[in-house]
Amino acid sequence: MTPEEFRKLGYRVVDWIADYRSKVSKLPVMARVAPGEVKGRLPSDPPEHPETFDQIFRDLDEIILPGLTHWQHPRFFGYFPANAMLASVLGDYLSTGLGVLGLSWQSSPTLTELEEVVTDWMRRMMGLSDRWSGVIQDTASTSTLVALLCAREKVSNYGLARGGLQEEKRPLVVYFTAQSHSSVEKAALLAGFGRNNLRVVAHDGRFAMSAPALRDALERDIAAGALPAAIVATTGTTTTTALDPIAEIAEIAGEHGVWLHVDAAMAGSAMILPECRWMWNGVEGADSLVVNAHKWLGAAFDCSLYYVRDAQHLVRVMSTSPSYLQSAADGQVKNLRDWGLPLGRRFRALKLWLLIREQGVAGLQARIRRDLENAKWFAEQVEATADWSVLAPVPLQTVCVRHEPPGLTGDALDRHTLDWVERVNRSGEVYLTPAVLDGRWMVRVSIGTADTGREDVAALWALMRQEAEGR
Amino acid sequence: MTPEEFRKLGYRVVDWIADYRSKVSKLPVMARVAPGEVKGRLPSDPPEHPETFDQIFRDLDEIILPGLTHWQHPRFFGYFPANAMLASVLGDYLSTGLGVLGLSWQSSPTLTELEEVVTDWMRRMMGLSDRWSGVIQDTASTSTLVALLCAREKVSNYGLARGGLQEEKRPLVVYFTAQSHSSVEKAALLAGFGRNNLRVVAHDGRFAMSAPALRDALERDIAAGALPAAIVATTGTTTTTALDPIAEIAEIAGEHGVWLHVDAAMAGSAMILPECRWMWNGVEGADSLVVNAHKWLGAAFDCSLYYVRDAQHLVRVMSTSPSYLQSAADGQVKNLRDWGLPLGRRFRALKLWLLIREQGVAGLQARIRRDLENAKWFAEQVEATADWSVLAPVPLQTVCVRHEPPGLTGDALDRHTLDWVERVNRSGEVYLTPAVLDGRWMVRVSIGTADTGREDVAALWALMRQEAEGR
Repeated sequence: MTPEEFRKLGYRVVDWIADYRSKVSKLPVMARVAPGEVKGRLPSDPPEHPETFDQIFRDLDEIILPGLTHWQHPRFFGYFPANAMLASVLGDYLSTGLGVLGLSWQSSPTLTELEEVVTDWMRRMMGLSDRWSGVIQDTASTSTLVALLCAREKVSNYGLARGGLQEEKRPLVVYFTAQSHSSVEKAALLAGFGRNNLRVVAHDGRFAMSAPALRDALERDIAAGALPAAIVATTGTTTTTALDPIAEIAEIAGEHGVWLHVDAAMAGSAMILPECRWMWNGVEGADSLVVNAHKWLGAAFDCSLYYVRDAQHLVRVMSTSPSYLQSAADGQVKNLRDWGLPLGRRFRALKLWLLIREQGVAGLQARIRRDLENAKWFAEQVEATADWSVLAPVPLQTVCVRHEPPGLTGDALDRHTLDWVERVNRSGEVYLTPAVLDGRWMVRVSIGTADTGREDVAALWALMRQEAEGR
Repeated sequence: MTPEEFRKLGYRVVDWIADYRSKVSKLPVMARVAPGEVKGRLPSDPPEHPETFDQIFRDLDEIILPGLTHWQHPRFFGYFPANAMLASVLGDYLSTGLGVLGLSWQSSPTLTELEEVVTDWMRRMMGLSDRWSGVIQDTASTSTLVALLCAREKVSNYGLARGGLQEEKRPLVVYFTAQSHSSVEKAALLAGFGRNNLRVVAHDGRFAMSAPALRDALERDIAAGALPAAIVATTGTTTTTALDPIAEIAEIAGEHGVWLHVDAAMAGSAMILPECRWMWNGVEGADSLVVNAHKWLGAAFDCSLYYVRDAQHLVRVMSTSPSYLQSAADGQVKNLRDWGLPLGRRFRALKLWLLIREQGVAGLQARIRRDLENAKWFAEQVEATADWSVLAPVPLQTVCVRHEPPGLTGDALDRHTLDWVERVNRSGEVYLTPAVLDGRWMVRVSIGTADTGREDVAALWALMRQEAEGR
């Protein structure tokens, strides 16, 4: 394909996406395909000879599109908002089109330096001190794995340079709660700590980590000869957006010299609002921190911002310097390969840079405030309605609700919940994802796609009532 | 930004990239900026209010572009070819514009099923048996880390479910060579094995792992009470594209029940040529395998193909199933979050799908053959020229050369090498990356960007002679 052919086909792709974004609100939110259906419509062998773009666009319309669940739909209330705002999309288009890689500073200086600048913009926007340095990872799963690896190496005094985790005499222990994201447990297991050395600390009635329970667990472990390695606290848990008491946890971590990682993957976006920063009060006492700009904020996936207090330690754990990657500039620059797992790196800063510039900080703040207001309004409607409950505090944009008709309890209530959610989702009008809270199914209403207005939330509420109450 | 504004600005971005690709061959290949120069030209604070795209495009031209090293330049001979071919770029544009995520099959069925189909196309194209299952990771660094974690959990019989690596009584050992990619050592250290338990196996005069040395090392470790956990063999090492003897290594691995991971990140692209498959003869005896479609093949970064023989084992090591990600389809589908580290997943299959369809298998094969021919031709020129040497076999597209004027040895020779490469790179005409081989600096000429023709290789050779010979 020549650049001129690319120009024409590129317009056609842009048209296709512009049309898609224009009509997405009319499409059924949840994909309506059966397992294997898409696969069954695609040839099992690759084409020997070139195919036309007419054929490719036909397949996009007929095979690809019907099998998508539409995350950019204004009535997508599932999982979390993963806004790929259009300015950010354009930033990513620039990145992919340029096709440059960051293996080292030298391999594309702008790639590294813009990433430094933009992660620092975000640091300022969230009110963090200049003691934090940032880098872009792919996901919070990876950021948290990096954090736990760094914690492991700190407490073991760089055991990786000797016998690794295999030579540890005292068990190294990791602390989190049952409300922590699944990636925390996964990261701890992959980092080699072992399930026996994970402590699920009790949470309180607001689903936040109990600081006294954390202290007890730590002290019990220390008394038993174990070595606390890391605490993962969450600002805005996945299920209910609960707020672990960071200040108290940081104090405990500080007393015992334990690594504190704060998972603000979802809620971090709200920290661009000064009125929300009480939610992670104490965060300056943490060692590492993850905020996914590819969630609520609006950067196209993947754009997970990982901040550390001690960049030197991160580099010491992650660094490699084979001869084929060395350059004369190495002493004066950041080589971001030493800031995470992968060596290769896309020019991801562009998508965040364009987003912030096109929206302005004020624009981003206004949208986050709109969503907070919508969540508050929605929670009020639920609370004011008979047989409906809001099950957890609503500090952010997720509202956990259940319809509890008189007489329905236990498994019968679970069945009722899953049934009406299934009907709501099958309608194609909205999309919700249920989850388990205190052992019972309930519904997480996650508000905040870029185009979700009050009328969308109102329509959701009407449909929920209709399907749950059978009116 | 509305979809209609996106349409207009999208055209402008496409134009900018089409223009960039048209003119890239005229730009200096290596960036000509000093450390900190780009950063110094960008504001340290984010804009409070929206900025215009006119301003953004001006900054792209004036600040971003001059600080790039141009990987898509036809005279880029550094590192490795990272072809972001234009059809693949369009596939990525579709992915970013759609903004859908694969957290589970349910969260966008097409995303998962197209990934299954396209990784299976690639499996067929490379002549692998249907015992292999594929998934897309970001980079080979990550793929290799996943492989070593799987090896660790196999040999420890899922120690992660108990005391983790901390409870291992016998040291678990990992084997590779000094020619293995730096990511292998990094992955082994991060997986917790510890440097004392890494064995750098001797390589032969062709820079390939010595199978007898591997056998010796294994047997010595076993006799000493250690437990061999994994062997990483490479098809096409980074420095010289050396070919470890996979068949012999697989036999040894099989005898001792040791996990064998094959790193074919670079060379895997050549396996679409039947005449190249002798290079990884025995690969069917491996347990895992990585091929980076984002290198020579032409898929836009990131698109690292990771294949495993035992998908169930991979899933058992990586799986998580929190309630908020469960769906009724779970028993019948693949949930790719359980096939690697991150939970979230871009629709990466699109860029590989479009590449293969636009080129056809025959088109991809023809280009790889062209590059092999160019490398052969280049090596012949070097060998036929006085004072120049080809330092390693050239099975693929990388030629390791040195200019060795009479009387120059040792550090003086190193200085000469680094000096003339520096002059070549500063010319802006071509880009080369030096590396150390057998303790001395030499030059890797890595041939194979999408637009590199014979005339580009000839121009490189003329310039190398000019700068090295001082003619």
